[in-house]
Amino acid sequence: MNALHIIAKKRDGLALSNEEIDFFIRGVTQEEIPDYQTAAWLMAVYLQGMSRHETTRLTYALAHSGRTLDVEKTAPLAVDKHSTGGVGDKTTLVVAPLVVTAGLSVAKISGRGLGFTLGTLDKLESFPGFTSELDVTQFLDNFAKYGIVVAAQTPDLVPADGKLYALRDVTATVGSLPLIASSIMSKKLAVGAKAIVLDVKVGNGAFMKTEEEAVELARAMIDLGENLGKRVAAIISDMNQPLGHAVGNTVEVREAIDTLQGAGPADFTTHCLTVATQMLLLAGESQDEQEAWDRLEGILKSGQAIAKLKDLVAAQGGDTAPVENPARLPQAKITHLVNSPKEGYISQLDAMEVGLTALELGAGRKKKGDPVDHAVGIVLHKKIGDQVEKGEGLCTIHAQTPEDLARAEQRLLAAYAWNEESVAPPPLIHRILR
Amino acid sequence: MNALHIIAKKRDGLALSNEEIDFFIRGVTQEEIPDYQTAAWLMAVYLQGMSRHETTRLTYALAHSGRTLDVEKTAPLAVDKHSTGGVGDKTTLVVAPLVVTAGLSVAKISGRGLGFTLGTLDKLESFPGFTSELDVTQFLDNFAKYGIVVAAQTPDLVPADGKLYALRDVTATVGSLPLIASSIMSKKLAVGAKAIVLDVKVGNGAFMKTEEEAVELARAMIDLGENLGKRVAAIISDMNQPLGHAVGNTVEVREAIDTLQGAGPADFTTHCLTVATQMLLLAGESQDEQEAWDRLEGILKSGQAIAKLKDLVAAQGGDTAPVENPARLPQAKITHLVNSPKEGYISQLDAMEVGLTALELGAGRKKKGDPVDHAVGIVLHKKIGDQVEKGEGLCTIHAQTPEDLARAEQRLLAAYAWNEESVAPPPLIHRILR
Repeated sequence: MNALHIIAKKRDGLALSNEEIDFFIRGVTQEEIPDYQTAAWLMAVYLQGMSRHETTRLTYALAHSGRTLDVEKTAPLAVDKHSTGGVGDKTTLVVAPLVVTAGLSVAKISGRGLGFTLGTLDKLESFPGFTSELDVTQFLDNFAKYGIVVAAQTPDLVPADGKLYALRDVTATVGSLPLIASSIMSKKLAVGAKAIVLDVKVGNGAFMKTEEEAVELARAMIDLGENLGKRVAAIISDMNQPLGHAVGNTVEVREAIDTLQGAGPADFTTHCLTVATQMLLLAGESQDEQEAWDRLEGILKSGQAIAKLKDLVAAQGGDTAPVENPARLPQAKITHLVNSPKEGYISQLDAMEVGLTALELGAGRKKKGDPVDHAVGIVLHKKIGDQVEKGEGLCTIHAQTPEDLARAEQRLLAAYAWNEESVAPPPLIHRILR
Repeated sequence: MNALHIIAKKRDGLALSNEEIDFFIRGVTQEEIPDYQTAAWLMAVYLQGMSRHETTRLTYALAHSGRTLDVEKTAPLAVDKHSTGGVGDKTTLVVAPLVVTAGLSVAKISGRGLGFTLGTLDKLESFPGFTSELDVTQFLDNFAKYGIVVAAQTPDLVPADGKLYALRDVTATVGSLPLIASSIMSKKLAVGAKAIVLDVKVGNGAFMKTEEEAVELARAMIDLGENLGKRVAAIISDMNQPLGHAVGNTVEVREAIDTLQGAGPADFTTHCLTVATQMLLLAGESQDEQEAWDRLEGILKSGQAIAKLKDLVAAQGGDTAPVENPARLPQAKITHLVNSPKEGYISQLDAMEVGLTALELGAGRKKKGDPVDHAVGIVLHKKIGDQVEKGEGLCTIHAQTPEDLARAEQRLLAAYAWNEESVAPPPLIHRILR
């Protein structure tokens, strides 16, 4: 068996055997296969695809390229969630404390922001002192103690995925269904929760632009999970406009706190309840969708899940005072309300443009390792379907310089479109797949 | 413009612009584009193909990645030839002296052996003292003086092709029509002869296994050449059994000397006359195929082209005494006649197996840089269609050790097949394309 033969086989559209996939991923992990051979193989996979069986084995091989955890042994009813990434997506900040309050436990490996999507870890690091970098022992200790932990991937978890991802990024092979699905699911497999809810975003502010693509990816991941002994559900949710009102780090944390206290935006609250309901059902903590929803809605209204957010923040070294007093979170130098230049109904609010504007303000990263400004961001007061008067507030920009502010204002005004007739808002949830 | 965008465009099956091809090849030449990006691009080209226009521009960009010569200025009626490689293919050793005797001039960059095909340069280096490594000045000086030079590629000629070829070899992207055609033709373009005869081999001892594939490659190269202002003809010749009788270095040189003296094997003599005739016609030195053939055949019968072989060998430091007395060429320790184990008609003589046997004896290279044993080889006494008695000589093996001999004998006996009924030999020339 050799790498060249495996590349040629995939190039010719043939299915790779388990042994061939294991050999290749072991070679990548141990750096015995040079990057140029891996790159050629990735392009062959991109163009020739992989069968379900191959994708399952690839996922398994990736998951076992490093250390694996078994969080099921540490705390009961462990459940995981994953979002494919969007703009304003602070869902984990709400659903993790929410479902833990409802009796589940959540041990989650999260990502950092890159490009137009911001990262859960960067948002959490708005809390002064909070660290995302836990070693495996700390990760499992926190999980055992509080039933909740959200941290960065450690280098000994799925190392082959890290190597493949870095190469995909520079060889135009990111957008391959088997490669995306195996990358996501290998990380879930390595952590070990048996129930996983996937939040697959679709729309112009997501990687998947059409519902068809999103459903295809969701089905592939559900299949993969089931082949690997997991229970998986997928929510196809809209990303044609940002989720909720806030896009940034501090601003999103504030919105998450509001939501955990029953005072969040309607769309974001509904989205969180949808995700959390599926988590309860999948974990077997509830048998009935309406019962689960009502219970979770009750928790939000009571504000009691805030305690679990505090646990999460405190356990990872963060100052919890901002939970009670969000003014203690980092604040930008300038806060500016952008007024609507005309009246009408908002017919468009380009999620990608809003995400890129937040990135330009400094909330995100253009490339890995860039620093993030937690204080800057955008709060949208009007979204698609809302009626607006001329001169009424459209959105608030949190910026550090007048120049940044001016550029952001211009860009956001262009991200909005107005219509004389009333406009229906896009559906929030397109589909739920189990 | 950036490499990632160019890879993505080709990945999606789109045609690259001239500027994009130039940018990519410049990046490869200057080592600004990393190997993993080039590898991904090569796989995308392999699987998505290239238009004629793209292939032409790629050829042009490769040719101009380094120094270019203009041999037309140095000697009149310069003509080039190229074989796609086969077993027993010593054609250059005969046709170069032959056509130069007939009034043309030949400045040829040749290759070394790799795998089952041996190289013209290795064969020439059977002459003690002969060097293939000429710098550009020596190359052009010899050409001006003798009208004949056959040497190795220098690093300053088509450097991008060298880099691409090395990567194709290890990324399973060798067998791509636009990549093969542009690689061959860029080298011809850089040397500068306006007339080029291609000898495209087809059969089990060639890279092209079917006539259809061979014709497709030939047509692509003819197109390419014509788009770049060259006159190109292509001969599709058979490689289901070795060409001529000899397979090795010294043994092939001896056969070439015999042929130049009018005493070569019939098939090889016919093949050389076919190639040389096309060279005369293409160079405009003859207007009539029959006239050209007769003239060249007369030269072979007279033995006068031997003088040009001596010029070639002497000009590059070789001892010409073996031309008169081939016993002075390197000789193997053991010479052994293999007898036929049965009677009948030879129905098969597997060219690939004969080539691999010569490789195992030491005549060729398993990998670049391996040393070559000039003395070892095989001389076939019976070929497809020949009748043979039991115990009659089939072939002679020139080996250095009894173990090598035993393995080669076993392998060659398995490469032959016998038939009770008479068998027609395969056609020597399948087609000539102009």
